[in-house]
Amino acid sequence: MGQKGNLMTYRPDIMVLDATIRDGGLVNNFFFEDEFVRELYEANIKAGVDYMEFGYKASKDLFDPKEFGKWKFCDEEDIRAIVGENLTDVKIAVMADVGRTDYEKDIIDKKDSVIDMIRIATYVNTIPAAIEMVEYCHEKGYETSVNIMAISTASGRDIEQALELLCQSSVDVIYLVDSYGSLYPEQIRYFTELYVEAAEKHGKKIGIHAHNNQQMAFANTIEATAHGASYLDATMMGIGRGAGNCMVEALLGFLKNPKYRLVYVLRFVETYMLELKKKGITWGYDVPYLLTGLLNQHPRTAIDKIKADDTRYARYYTELWDREH
Amino acid sequence: MGQKGNLMTYRPDIMVLDATIRDGGLVNNFFFEDEFVRELYEANIKAGVDYMEFGYKASKDLFDPKEFGKWKFCDEEDIRAIVGENLTDVKIAVMADVGRTDYEKDIIDKKDSVIDMIRIATYVNTIPAAIEMVEYCHEKGYETSVNIMAISTASGRDIEQALELLCQSSVDVIYLVDSYGSLYPEQIRYFTELYVEAAEKHGKKIGIHAHNNQQMAFANTIEATAHGASYLDATMMGIGRGAGNCMVEALLGFLKNPKYRLVYVLRFVETYMLELKKKGITWGYDVPYLLTGLLNQHPRTAIDKIKADDTRYARYYTELWDREH
Repeated sequence: MGQKGNLMTYRPDIMVLDATIRDGGLVNNFFFEDEFVRELYEANIKAGVDYMEFGYKASKDLFDPKEFGKWKFCDEEDIRAIVGENLTDVKIAVMADVGRTDYEKDIIDKKDSVIDMIRIATYVNTIPAAIEMVEYCHEKGYETSVNIMAISTASGRDIEQALELLCQSSVDVIYLVDSYGSLYPEQIRYFTELYVEAAEKHGKKIGIHAHNNQQMAFANTIEATAHGASYLDATMMGIGRGAGNCMVEALLGFLKNPKYRLVYVLRFVETYMLELKKKGITWGYDVPYLLTGLLNQHPRTAIDKIKADDTRYARYYTELWDREH
Repeated sequence: MGQKGNLMTYRPDIMVLDATIRDGGLVNNFFFEDEFVRELYEANIKAGVDYMEFGYKASKDLFDPKEFGKWKFCDEEDIRAIVGENLTDVKIAVMADVGRTDYEKDIIDKKDSVIDMIRIATYVNTIPAAIEMVEYCHEKGYETSVNIMAISTASGRDIEQALELLCQSSVDVIYLVDSYGSLYPEQIRYFTELYVEAAEKHGKKIGIHAHNNQQMAFANTIEATAHGASYLDATMMGIGRGAGNCMVEALLGFLKNPKYRLVYVLRFVETYMLELKKKGITWGYDVPYLLTGLLNQHPRTAIDKIKADDTRYARYYTELWDREH
């Protein structure tokens, strides 16, 4: 396979997806101010970002709308209050989790919606349910992606079978998701090539969603890009659960397509992201995340340690190690 | 060339060098407490770190000893006050800058010193002076490295000529140094393979010293490792000028040689590195460093912005861009 593109040229097939509201919403339960979301939308338009993900289409039966901000549910009228008819080049995405979405009720015909893409998040063992959702959304007229989460804990054979099934479906984009931030660049290269090889002959695109537990989110994103991924997730200042994500500002700096305008991202970051930090919203690399990433575990215990300001790293490492055996 | 080693095995030729005091000294003018240095030394012994760099052998004629801590000068008796005769597996290194060291006066016979390795830092245009220092130190009985700084701003032909000259010298290790933290993993692969190809047939080793301006220090270090570098610089919690360095705790987590014991690094970090942070010593990734890294510039203006708490990133980016043209 080898490398696609080089550092001097750009690939017009690259799509940058801003997941600030969706992945950042996991930090603040989706309680973003309207001004924040509107300014983010404006910044993405000016910066040349290709997709903006507004949040989840979560089931109001399973999740109490009083406990979450509106971007957990992404009602059509809430998105329209920000984007109107969205007469711009930015496409609008939402995420729908397998088993946590009333998609037959909440996902309406594309002709009545400003949403362009439904991103279906699944573990490798719920691929058939994901494909049902893909076909439903595709029928309704949407672009779709399937984001296979936590591949670092799945077996190689399961991933290959998942790819085979997805390649027979109507899905447009298959995402490689390093949920635990545990993969190193050489593993990202391996997985990207596996995905690209399976998907290319079926006309599917490959995406990458990286986490920063080991400070690898940006590095892994550009490694996946060099090896054929074309849908690249990032968030402003890397906001996201735990250690967060690849930073939009780093990614746009790296990409050579002149349509991307970093300065508009920086303007948003210096005003709105720093304000979130001042309000005490915390995310980003820290030693406990390094340790869960290293041991390929969910970061939830690391989040607890950081909230409790428990910095006994050596003891925590020993605890994590015990949990493995 | 391709890859050396894989993620399941380990290469016994790997050497980890802890540069905490030397690169960290650039943050606090080398004013580390004796207890800090002694505990770091003990931690490195227990953790299986191969080399510990104590600081610079700077000229007392050019630098006023009243303005700097003692590790700017690394007098023999100051190192001995920490390590005694150093009857351990940790080797002791110091750095000597071309043009800033009175090496004929300050570097004594190896038989009278506990220092094992002299690391000579040079720009590509002062290689002949670096080689003079190499031959002097080699004659005195030391291991030597030459650390070619700022290769991201040097011409390819100059780097090739520097490598040719160094391969004819007595130097043991040639270091690839990404001073501005501006290189991406694919460039690191290119440079590492260039260095390895030149050096291998002369029995020289290759080292990597990465900076974290674009959050690439750890990623670039392991990429260089995978492509043949064997001397790997890191610092505790990544301390170092500006955005800092590759973190020892991340690197030891990655390496598979069972002689490395991460828990002792974590113990040091949670006690002594967090204490430095509490005292207000600042280092680590921040947006201004991303921008100087991206534009391949020295981080000094970014350090100024951060000291002044000037977060007008968009304006700063425009200023940096103007400076380029």
